[in-house]
Parts: sequence; structure tokens; C-alpha cells
Amino acid sequence: MSAHPRLSMNQATIKYASLSTALEVVSNAGLESIGLWREPVAEAGLDAAVQLVADSGLRVSSLCRAGFFTMEEGPARRASIDENRRAIAETAALGAPTLVLVAGGLPVGSRDLAGARERVRDAIGELASDAAAAGISLAIEPLHPMYVSDRAVVSTLGQALDIATQFDSATVGVVVDTFHVFWDPQVLEQIARAGAGGYIASYQVCDWATPLPADVLLARHYPGDGVIDFTPLTRAVIEAGYTGDIEVEIFNQDIWDAQPLDVVTRTTAAFEATIAADLEAARV
Amino acid sequence: MSAHPRLSMNQATIKYASLSTALEVVSNAGLESIGLWREPVAEAGLDAAVQLVADSGLRVSSLCRAGFFTMEEGPARRASIDENRRAIAETAALGAPTLVLVAGGLPVGSRDLAGARERVRDAIGELASDAAAAGISLAIEPLHPMYVSDRAVVSTLGQALDIATQFDSATVGVVVDTFHVFWDPQVLEQIARAGAGGYIASYQVCDWATPLPADVLLARHYPGDGVIDFTPLTRAVIEAGYTGDIEVEIFNQDIWDAQPLDVVTRTTAAFEATIAADLEAARV
Repeated sequence: MSAHPRLSMNQATIKYASLSTALEVVSNAGLESIGLWREPVAEAGLDAAVQLVADSGLRVSSLCRAGFFTMEEGPARRASIDENRRAIAETAALGAPTLVLVAGGLPVGSRDLAGARERVRDAIGELASDAAAAGISLAIEPLHPMYVSDRAVVSTLGQALDIATQFDSATVGVVVDTFHVFWDPQVLEQIARAGAGGYIASYQVCDWATPLPADVLLARHYPGDGVIDFTPLTRAVIEAGYTGDIEVEIFNQDIWDAQPLDVVTRTTAAFEATIAADLEAARV
Repeated sequence: MSAHPRLSMNQATIKYASLSTALEVVSNAGLESIGLWREPVAEAGLDAAVQLVADSGLRVSSLCRAGFFTMEEGPARRASIDENRRAIAETAALGAPTLVLVAGGLPVGSRDLAGARERVRDAIGELASDAAAAGISLAIEPLHPMYVSDRAVVSTLGQALDIATQFDSATVGVVVDTFHVFWDPQVLEQIARAGAGGYIASYQVCDWATPLPADVLLARHYPGDGVIDFTPLTRAVIEAGYTGDIEVEIFNQDIWDAQPLDVVTRTTAAFEATIAADLEAARV
């Protein structure tokens, strides 16, 4: 089997597979790259994970995820910053170029969205030198505004860039995830803005369909199974100069319940049908 | 009983009450204003509704709602434009200053979000002269981006203003609904922009809380029961020059299942606790 050389399977799409199973299935399906998550890496043990990755021959496109640092100063915030530092070290150990950051929601009992957003910038300010020293980039992922209060106070690509552009683009960038940004009337101009400064650290693709499921966290679909027109987004990302791997990251109970090999096969086909052609066209 | 003179009870908050019951309960609770919906008005019959409103002594702050005109040219689009013209006539007949417009989602089978958004502007262009002749304003309501594909392709206040500002502000304006816009990093500057041109046609308040219910349409709460900080939003709207009624519009199954009088009483208290003080403060 073979797959597009820029397709990376984000491990969350085959959430119930162990790290070794995930690496084996993805490699056997002919992919060259995988996006890892910290929990299955921790389950295997970091040293063992590093060895498993080396044995697989796969690139690691990113490590997901750190962040969750919207709380006010105090022990919980210090614990979060420490946890982020461990994640930076893991990212470097695994040879991944990028650590994905999800900001976190409003602290419990707080209505201070502006303050929470400032504390995201402050946390990245604390972590930037660690990332630079480790040779990895921190990738701020704006999440769809329906997650603003409980998961990520960074809601748009423009807002993520307002933070990222305060730092060196080798150290802090943004994630462009189609599911989270396709609705944004400003998305194409913000992708261009990100590209102009070299701030696109990751491009992730999956689809949006309605009605949303009861748990809106699990609302993602294979590219092509929803309403997103990937062509303008993919072309904008490529024209903006992004040359890295492209991850398919899907949270969906039905997909999680399927066999990992079937999921990787479907993902490969979906990528060919919705993304691959625009990668070539945008290069022309 | 008395209530804040600018508080208007949007009829959707007491969805199961007939028009006559809604008018009676709202009037008895000491409110001066109500926001009506087309369906209960149609149930009563327009002429009878006009008489009931006159007898109630209440102002009608707005009529909800028309719009739903994202489809391509053809009989369905013509039917929608005609329906919008009927809604404009009803708005004038009821003495309401404003007809609320919800854009509609992507047409079935379409992924052309940009095209759907252009057709919203085109539809308003067709309807603006009717609104001007009727002496009412069309109020474009940006809906939260979680509704982008199935309900409203207008997702931000900035986007709504990009359309509205192509028209006279006496004829086309925007709705600022806290639930739909609180998450937007640009919300305060866009409220100021709207105010500078006189484009705020309606201010609606209700609250956001997570987890979202299984049906995300019913995710709204009494002001104060969620995470929205109303103070900066209300002050921005008042400082932007909005002098109209302020509607409380809540879609929530528990609230719909409660007695209308209890709901109006709770709404009045919630408005006092979360909105009223900022109306006075912003005037200073």
C-alpha cells in the first residue's frame, strides 16, 4: 500500500490503538508520518516510545497536546507551566517539530474571557525560550468558538496570530485545522497573514457536518463527509508556503469504534479525494 | 409589579404561550415591551394580533424572524423573497421598528459558503426598498459559528456589518445578541463600528453555559446563569448610541416547560441583576 507523502495520521483518529499498534498500522498502510498524543506515549514510556518510533521509520509530524494555561497565578498555573515544559521535552525527544497547544477554557467560576486570553499569551511568553532551546515550535491551535468557555479561549486564526506574531516564527506558530476555522469569514486572509510570517506550524484536516452529535467534541468527520470545501483552504495554506505534513485528526465515536486499519485506509482514500489534488495544483 | 423600562420579553422565551397569553403575562409583569414571533402572530391572525397588541399597551420591539435566503436563484428563492416581503408588512402592521433576519445555512448538498454569503447580501439588496417603504429596519443577526452550516452563514458581527453598511442604517442594521457574539475577540470594536454608523437595530441578551445540551439550539440561559460578562458588552452597546429596547430571548427546554409568569418574573430579576446597572453607568 502507499499513501500521499504528506499525509500524516493523527493518532487521535485511532484513539483506542496502543502506540505500537498505531505505528504498525500507519506504517503498513504506506504512510510516512504520524501525529502522536502524549497519553499513549506516556503509556508506552517515553524511552520505549522513542525507540518504537525509530523502528517504525515514520516521521512524527506533531505531538498533541499541551496548553491549558488560562488559570490565574498560583500552584495550578505553575503545575501547568511545568507540564508544558515536560511536553516540550517529549516533543524534542520524539523528533517532532511541533507541540500543539490548546489554550484551555475559562477557569471555573470566571467570566473574564479577556483576562484568560491575556494569560495564554503570558504562558507562551514563559515557554518560548524552552521551545527555542529544545528546537521545536509551539503551535497555538484556535478551536471553534463553540469550545470557547470549556476548552479553548483562542477562537480564531487571527487571534492566534495576534499572539504568535509576538514571537519568533521558528518558536511559536499556529495550527490551521479546517474543522475549527472553515466558518471564519476572515480565514483566507488570516492564512495568508500566517504564511507571510512563516507562522503556519501545522495543517490539520477533517470535516464538519450537522446536526452536531450530543457531545460536540466528537463532531468531526472524514474529509469529504461534510460541508467543508477544502480546496480554497488547502490552496491558501500551500500558497502561504507551508511545506510540512498534513494531519487528519478526527474525534468521532463511530470512527474510534472501527478497526484501526480500516480507519487508516479510509483516511488515505479521503485524503486523496479531497486534499491531494490541491497540493499539486497550488504548486503550479 | 414593575420592570426596567427598556426590558423587552422576546416571545420565544415563553414559546408555548399563545399571543394573547404572552401579551397579558408580560403586561401584568410591568414590562413595557415585547418581541414577537411570526408563528404565534399568524396563529392569532394578523389583524387580531394588531388589535391584541394595541389593547395590551405594549411596544413591539421587533418581529422575529425572516431571512433564510441562501439558496440559488429559482422558485425556492423567489418564495423566500416573497415570504420576507410578507414579514416586512407584518412588522409594519404590528408597529415594530425592526424585522430580525436569520440568514439560513448552506443549501442542501452545497459546500459553497462564500456563495451563500453573497446571496444573503443580494437578498437584502432586493428587500431594502420594501423595508424603506414600510418604514422598518431589517436587522441582520449574526449567529454563533456552530450554526454556520445549518442555520446562519452570517457568523460574526463584523461580517453582518460588512453587509449592513452597504445600505442606509435606517433600513438595514444588525442584531447584537450576547449569546452569539460574546466569544468574538473583535466584538467590542465591532459594536463600536456598528454604533458609529447607527447600525445597531437590536440588542438581545441571554447567557452561555457549558456543557452544551444535546440540541445546541437550546443552549441559552437566563443572564447570570452562564459565563458571559455582560458589563463590557452592554456598556459598549449603550456607548455606541443604542437607545432601543433590550430583548431577553432564550431557547431552553426547561424554561419553555416552566409557567410563563414565572419565566417573566425570573427574566425581570435577571435583567435587573446583570444589565440594568450598566445601562445607567454607561449614560454617565
